[in-house]
Amino acid sequence: MSPIRGYVFDAYGTLFDVHSVVEAGRVITGDPVALSTMWRQKQLEYTWLRALMGTYADFWVVTEAALRYTIGRLGLTASEAQVRQLMEAYLSLACFPEVKAALRQLAGRPRAVLSNGAPSMLAAAVTASGLTALLEHVISVDRVKTYKPSPLVYALGPETLGVSAGELLFVSSNGWDVAGAKAFGYQVVWCNRTGAPEEELGVRPDLVIDSLEKIPR
Amino acid sequence: MSPIRGYVFDAYGTLFDVHSVVEAGRVITGDPVALSTMWRQKQLEYTWLRALMGTYADFWVVTEAALRYTIGRLGLTASEAQVRQLMEAYLSLACFPEVKAALRQLAGRPRAVLSNGAPSMLAAAVTASGLTALLEHVISVDRVKTYKPSPLVYALGPETLGVSAGELLFVSSNGWDVAGAKAFGYQVVWCNRTGAPEEELGVRPDLVIDSLEKIPR
Repeated sequence: MSPIRGYVFDAYGTLFDVHSVVEAGRVITGDPVALSTMWRQKQLEYTWLRALMGTYADFWVVTEAALRYTIGRLGLTASEAQVRQLMEAYLSLACFPEVKAALRQLAGRPRAVLSNGAPSMLAAAVTASGLTALLEHVISVDRVKTYKPSPLVYALGPETLGVSAGELLFVSSNGWDVAGAKAFGYQVVWCNRTGAPEEELGVRPDLVIDSLEKIPR
Repeated sequence: MSPIRGYVFDAYGTLFDVHSVVEAGRVITGDPVALSTMWRQKQLEYTWLRALMGTYADFWVVTEAALRYTIGRLGLTASEAQVRQLMEAYLSLACFPEVKAALRQLAGRPRAVLSNGAPSMLAAAVTASGLTALLEHVISVDRVKTYKPSPLVYALGPETLGVSAGELLFVSSNGWDVAGAKAFGYQVVWCNRTGAPEEELGVRPDLVIDSLEKIPR
């Protein structure tokens, strides 16, 4: 890999463990994994569809819409208070166990988050997970009103850090995000914690790791 | 609804029954529904992702990529001959039972297909299903090198038929396609054969039917 002058991280599933979102589902279902799996899938679908349609709504709106669809699709019922409770799980996420040590190791070069999350969602999760002092930049797609994997989103990294994409290392656990960042021109690490197969999108990560502690310096 | 001067149909799942694709899966798995469900999901995902990334590849390429991912993800194995056999199921689709009668009822105004399918895939399916004489236009996204729900795709309908979107009736069984067409400006009918809940994308169809014979004239 070429010399690295800065780091850009995906947020949900990469730095932030969304396990607490799964747990929150127990208030309305005995199968919270089925709920959270479809909710996450619909959340992503709605970002892609709205980006393509040109009808951006922020990630909070999209996440709630995906939740409401999922509740209906699975034949569940939820009071407004329960919907709020589920949504608020997104505001109090923990980070994965290795994240703090991994970010500390990279100190000295700028460390940024680049995420689909709405600014208020990202601010809450960064605070709740104790990452405030370990990140120089928290960048939301909301600045360009579209979603990953649009090149308009990936361009925010080089623009904010003042470093070209080819000198930045982009780190994500989401295979489709890896493809988007690589197509844009970043050096890319795929943190594949679960041993998932590679996405077949015509581009490949530069490196695959199974823990953020293995990010090259 | 306003007066209608032409009809634009989605293809896969709307006119063409993809059941034969499910059946073809039996050559590599005892659970062909799991295979076809993930294959279809990945096929759509890859169209949305490639459209957003700006890395268009045609629907044949995307469909095969989605199949290869799905085979790996489900831990199946398939020879190259079996992959070819599965892919070729897309070239010999049947139409749903009511399609011919429904299209005949609409004769006198132009009837078009507007589909993600590659031109060769659509030509094969229209021939195999016996719809050649019942469609005045078969339009592929390949002309604009992107995918639904991009407005660039929906614009091909009015452009080809010489009729404004507001005077065309767009018909699809896919909820997300319904949303895209409505956001673009068509009058839209959702053919919801399976009683699925509406997508939460901020736009709604003008009419919901459960069979194409109920399309308003």
